[in-house]
Amino acid sequence: MPIVTIQITREGTRPGADAITADEKAQLIEGASRLMLDVLGKPLESTFVVIEEVELENWGWGGLPVAAYRKQRAAKT
Amino acid sequence: MPIVTIQITREGTRPGADAITADEKAQLIEGASRLMLDVLGKPLESTFVVIEEVELENWGWGGLPVAAYRKQRAAKT
Amino acid sequence: MPIVTIQITREGTRPGADAITADEKAQLIEGASRLMLDVLGKPLESTFVVIEEVELENWGWGGLPVAAYRKQRAAKT
Amino acid sequence: MPIVTIQITREGTRPGADAITADEKAQLIEGASRLMLDVLGKPLESTFVVIEEVELENWGWGGLPVAAYRKQRAAKT
Amino acid sequence: MPIVTIQITREGTRPGADAITADEKAQLIEGASRLMLDVLGKPLESTFVVIEEVELENWGWGGLPVAAYRKQRAAKT
Amino acid sequence: MPIVTIQITREGTRPGADAITADEKAQLIEGASRLMLDVLGKPLESTFVVIEEVELENWGWGGLPVAAYRKQRAAKT
Repeated sequence: MPIVTIQITREGTRPGADAITADEKAQLIEGASRLMLDVLGKPLESTFVVIEEVELENWGWGGLPVAAYRKQRAAKT
Repeated sequence: MPIVTIQITREGTRPGADAITADEKAQLIEGASRLMLDVLGKPLESTFVVIEEVELENWGWGGLPVAAYRKQRAAKT
Repeated sequence: MPIVTIQITREGTRPGADAITADEKAQLIEGASRLMLDVLGKPLESTFVVIEEVELENWGWGGLPVAAYRKQRAAKT
Repeated sequence: MPIVTIQITREGTRPGADAITADEKAQLIEGASRLMLDVLGKPLESTFVVIEEVELENWGWGGLPVAAYRKQRAAKT
Repeated sequence: MPIVTIQITREGTRPGADAITADEKAQLIEGASRLMLDVLGKPLESTFVVIEEVELENWGWGGLPVAAYRKQRAAKT
Repeated sequence: MPIVTIQITREGTRPGADAITADEKAQLIEGASRLMLDVLGKPLESTFVVIEEVELENWGWGGLPVAAYRKQRAAKT
């Protein structure tokens, strides 16, 4: 009966993409469900996975919207 | 002060609809609030209800995106 | 596949009780699952319900811990 | 390592706006992160903030969708 | 920056245990973090994992507390 | 009607304390509620705050339980 909730920013994993693909989502679902099976012995049918995509400007890190935070970090290195 | 969060897939309850209707949402809100009143004695004004609609491809069950999982189950029966 | 999460303060519904009872929890679970069936046509087996009990001092309303907020409201009336 | 999740209805804070602005989001992120620093001593880099905007018809209060609830309250006063 | 939340019932994976072990939790954390790296390219340091253990009587499935639901299913087969 | 959820590890902010104090919780509640008022104009009575304290071994960062992650970081510097 586990529920695995995956919250990520809405953006692509490669240039030009502005969101993760259906295939990447399927991999997340499969991997998370399998983890519950491998570690806890939960059958695949007992696990729900929910992926929540959050707009970049709705995600904060370091006291800043994440895009600004990344720029700040990049400037430091 | 209860908070009731209802997570569902974004899809309609009848052919042609691709999401639940405003009326169905109102029924969910009323029903959930009334449940808090009936079982716990919480006044309606004390309850918040939040409905989260999740894209079909963002919901996993049985290790698969839910559309694929439904096909698999239908094929088995 | 709905998930219904019910967040409530950890306290009893009657004098002397410091938490809701197992029977009240069962009623919440049944009522929430039935609501998904009645409004959305979701079979009972497809719905998960999770009840989260939150310590009184961890819940805020009106800018105050809820016990203080209740005192303030009671004093006003 | 705190995670602060802010759930609000998707609507503007001033006439004509139908959502909060990027600047208001940045203020929420900064304020929430600073609160973790001031009260708990958590460095800004340790805090994630996630803002979830919920459609008006998906939010219930007083047993009603929030727009209907507001009308009801306004009519009472 | 992903956040992975894993909700499970509070019970052991083997006879006599009434909760999962610290080692099993570490495996869940490692597996979930690695999944974000493998599928989305997110560095391990960017991922938070939160495990929420839910009392058996606070989890509902099939309209029943989960212990009752398991008995019902076992009786059917 | 905002809901602010604050998730933190269950540990004290000063030597010897193994959890944050009721006073620190009250400060978090007041600060979060005031933030909704200052930025979004939401009256204090419209905001719920929920503090969730998570056991140290249930929180992961960097692919490790957080206590192990802190040791690893401390060893690097």
